[in-house]
Amino acid sequence: MSIVQFARKRHSTKAFDPSRKIPEGVIAELRELLRLSPSSVNSQPWHFVLASTEAGKARVAKAAEAGYPYNIPKIVNASHVLVLCARTAISEAHLEALLAQEEHDGRFVNAEAKAGQRGSRLMYSNLHRYELKDAQHWMEKQVYLALGTLLLGAASLEIDAVPMEGFNAKVLDEELGLRDKGFTSVVLAGLGYSGADDFNAKLPKSRLTDATVFTDI
Amino acid sequence: MSIVQFARKRHSTKAFDPSRKIPEGVIAELRELLRLSPSSVNSQPWHFVLASTEAGKARVAKAAEAGYPYNIPKIVNASHVLVLCARTAISEAHLEALLAQEEHDGRFVNAEAKAGQRGSRLMYSNLHRYELKDAQHWMEKQVYLALGTLLLGAASLEIDAVPMEGFNAKVLDEELGLRDKGFTSVVLAGLGYSGADDFNAKLPKSRLTDATVFTDI
Repeated sequence: MSIVQFARKRHSTKAFDPSRKIPEGVIAELRELLRLSPSSVNSQPWHFVLASTEAGKARVAKAAEAGYPYNIPKIVNASHVLVLCARTAISEAHLEALLAQEEHDGRFVNAEAKAGQRGSRLMYSNLHRYELKDAQHWMEKQVYLALGTLLLGAASLEIDAVPMEGFNAKVLDEELGLRDKGFTSVVLAGLGYSGADDFNAKLPKSRLTDATVFTDI
Repeated sequence: MSIVQFARKRHSTKAFDPSRKIPEGVIAELRELLRLSPSSVNSQPWHFVLASTEAGKARVAKAAEAGYPYNIPKIVNASHVLVLCARTAISEAHLEALLAQEEHDGRFVNAEAKAGQRGSRLMYSNLHRYELKDAQHWMEKQVYLALGTLLLGAASLEIDAVPMEGFNAKVLDEELGLRDKGFTSVVLAGLGYSGADDFNAKLPKSRLTDATVFTDI
């Protein structure tokens, strides 16, 4: 199938088959897709918690109990559940870690290239930290970019998925000790295989028309 | 190539070959990928301006002149440039248009299903409009989800791309008359084919390690 056919076929899975587990090799590919996701100035302002055990999924599901009970089965019956997190701040330590990783990976042909990258990333970071004062949202936008990568990637690997904003981030951050580590939960993704009771698998996809969402110049 | 191999090969294109144009069939696939992109409660809070002409690209490039001159060649030498926009508000008219499209596309088996979808989307919309008061950021996060879809999709279609946050949204919104239509520019994406002077095509990709960005539970 072509990438467009995979995109057309994918849907938000409303019920997973709890008996089916994603093979380890496919999970490794999904992890790698997330890890390789692009982000503004390669800021990678994220962390991913992957729940693959019953106990791990039950911990994530606690955050859906109050207010979002309809998401509990999507969490506990999924093969794997991802908690996509953003950093709680753009720290100097993180900026230095990114630069060190880039140097280690061989991206700087000379000191000027390294200084240029440091300056460029600092310029955009400071724009959001000090001028626009929207650093948290800026980082979370990069997390959504990674979510887009994940959802299309999963579809092309024939893995069913459901993104979920319906959970209590405060409860989940406490359960997983995220804030102490400098992270906060942003969005969840259940991954697995659609079950027989997944009514959304049978419904047609709906989107606004090309003429509505595009302007050509 | 596998989807992971495409993800590994993709890079932010620093210089396009201005002589190469993406075939219309591939552009149609990229449009369809964007149109099919998932979004929270199928809110599709976006609009996409696609510049394929020299005049169109020059209009987009005006927004890079002050402050971001390094992005001008990436815009004018790309085969196509996308302006990914968010809506400026979650309007009742938009919510009704989404529901009407879903009904037209056959997603409601009965009136209860339609009322359920209306209520669910309104709940999340109101959460962001009135409680969290972050509706603009929430919509822009969905635009980044679409950007993630686009970038992985382009890679898998062997199209080179570069996302750009470096432009003046106020200038671009005025140039394209976006705000009058209820949209505001969020992020750009140049699309085309990497040129011989694209130094980034030769540099290794750098990302934090799996052990750094993942926690398993």
